[in-house]
Amino acid sequence: MVANTEHPSQYASLTGDTPIVTVTDVAREAGVSVSTVSRIVNGTARVADDKRLAVEAAIARMDYRPNLHARSLKMGTSMTIGILTQRIESPVFNRVMLGIEEGLMDSGYAPIIVSGHWNQAEETERVRLLMARRVDGLVILNGGLTDAQLIEFSSRQPVVATGRRLQGHNLNAVRLDNVHGGYLATRHLLSLGHRRIAHIAGPDDHSDAVDRYMGFLRAHEEFGVPADPELVFQGDFNENGGALAMARLLDSGRSFSAVFAGNDQSAMGAHMVLYRRGLRVPEDISLIGFDNLPVSAYLTPPLTTVHQPLYEMGQYLAQSLLAMLGKSAGEEIKVPDMELVNRETVKRCV
Amino acid sequence: MVANTEHPSQYASLTGDTPIVTVTDVAREAGVSVSTVSRIVNGTARVADDKRLAVEAAIARMDYRPNLHARSLKMGTSMTIGILTQRIESPVFNRVMLGIEEGLMDSGYAPIIVSGHWNQAEETERVRLLMARRVDGLVILNGGLTDAQLIEFSSRQPVVATGRRLQGHNLNAVRLDNVHGGYLATRHLLSLGHRRIAHIAGPDDHSDAVDRYMGFLRAHEEFGVPADPELVFQGDFNENGGALAMARLLDSGRSFSAVFAGNDQSAMGAHMVLYRRGLRVPEDISLIGFDNLPVSAYLTPPLTTVHQPLYEMGQYLAQSLLAMLGKSAGEEIKVPDMELVNRETVKRCV
Repeated sequence: MVANTEHPSQYASLTGDTPIVTVTDVAREAGVSVSTVSRIVNGTARVADDKRLAVEAAIARMDYRPNLHARSLKMGTSMTIGILTQRIESPVFNRVMLGIEEGLMDSGYAPIIVSGHWNQAEETERVRLLMARRVDGLVILNGGLTDAQLIEFSSRQPVVATGRRLQGHNLNAVRLDNVHGGYLATRHLLSLGHRRIAHIAGPDDHSDAVDRYMGFLRAHEEFGVPADPELVFQGDFNENGGALAMARLLDSGRSFSAVFAGNDQSAMGAHMVLYRRGLRVPEDISLIGFDNLPVSAYLTPPLTTVHQPLYEMGQYLAQSLLAMLGKSAGEEIKVPDMELVNRETVKRCV
Repeated sequence: MVANTEHPSQYASLTGDTPIVTVTDVAREAGVSVSTVSRIVNGTARVADDKRLAVEAAIARMDYRPNLHARSLKMGTSMTIGILTQRIESPVFNRVMLGIEEGLMDSGYAPIIVSGHWNQAEETERVRLLMARRVDGLVILNGGLTDAQLIEFSSRQPVVATGRRLQGHNLNAVRLDNVHGGYLATRHLLSLGHRRIAHIAGPDDHSDAVDRYMGFLRAHEEFGVPADPELVFQGDFNENGGALAMARLLDSGRSFSAVFAGNDQSAMGAHMVLYRRGLRVPEDISLIGFDNLPVSAYLTPPLTTVHQPLYEMGQYLAQSLLAMLGKSAGEEIKVPDMELVNRETVKRCV
């Protein structure tokens, strides 16, 4: 039996709605320590299954209602990490979140996710909502919050972020080198002899999209090949936008032998339109994507793309946050560079 | 100026860490009403942009730190809806969550997401974590919690859930008819003359997977065609499991003309292996999936599949929860039946 280091009184409701059953009652009923009950009702640590079942049964039998809201006020810690993502359907952010989840595993901290939809006002509201409910740390995935806002948030709890570079006390914002990624994709096509390379860009207010286009231009410059701005079409980083951009490109009648799509989803949309028009990938047109989503290895043919270390980025963010929270975070995780994944949608230009 | 219906004293910290700046100070500094400041720091309602900017600026200048934790205790409402998903990378659950998000839009309720990883202990911990931080409603997406647990949770706040049928006071759990979906997929293949139909099943402890297999058997029965159990291979509902199952099926040397994959991700994995072995879809082998993920329309060829009304299910869940919370929820949303989406991966058996 673990020593009883908690006082049932700290569960007393602050709402005036005093609970009849105390945590001590539950512990006695379940035959476990008060701290075991506490760990279970907090929902933040693993407890052996038999103990858990006994406590759950006791809670149900006795209709015990913990007031952890009040408890968290008293303890000054919530054991939760708030994550602001942008779009719950984004496979890119979801890959980063998987890395965060796994990076937090066994730390006792549970992630809570909200989404901001690339809308600064909504992002601000959602982060305030998280902070109002007490989180011990914040993760901000891209979006439109200002650096000043992140600095303000970091005065309340540690903050890590992606999509920008910013360092401060309790603040660590990092971004992957998308210019280099765009360069790698385009250099690959140029080195295989392609000279008329189309680009399906992402949204022009999206800095990653702009950076990838910069990389596209940089590679052309390095090879002394002029990039044709008339071969650049705007997509939306989704399948449908990629399909529309490819349709416009084909309808323009301009000649090209390869396409650098701003992300894998755009590449999928583009491929579908090529397929519809009877153009084969890579026999007629070479196609390269960006992200290396899990699905991209299973396309037919498997997609040549640029790997973003999204999962590792998530692990790094979790580790960085744990370090700021004073938790020993093990060996430092290095986020690897972007790299070309050479599959089967690119061939030499003949 | 809106009437001041709030008392700054309710923001007084309960932690002993009394804030120096009150909400009234912020309202005065920003030149807006106290209730406007309150709406902004709560993060739960939209406020005109100019007012928002003024308040944000005042908050930053004055270093105001609201104690909404305490406020929520007093108000008895958190204006948040907790969602338990299982795997943050699941495109199926993410589609449902998109429907929930959009269903809650303009209601003032903000969704907060946690994930349980199909592990009853973890799911219980995460739900307790949500309830401990006060949510006004809970959404439980499938998983392994017991009916008794859902009933217990619903004694504290309204609960809606998927993957089971259960009704009660403040409780509404619904499930889509996966038997019918599996039947539709298989009937389509049988009606086109296929008689040797393979099935890539989902995890056998996953009730949706079992139901789809039941539908597969039911259609065979209806057509008086014996289903061959030796053509059923176990996948894992991911691309990789679909690929492995297809490889084992081909290696078994058994003859078949069509494959019903338990979900679209399995179908993608299976298609990649067929492609690798030089078998064309649908010329050599017909392939049908299940889910109708957004990506499935963009595969080459576009995938024939069964549409699950996931988005509409999400909207329905949001509406059901809002109704339990006493909010007028507009015209009742009907969740449509599953339906066959006839694209280009199935052809008549010759």
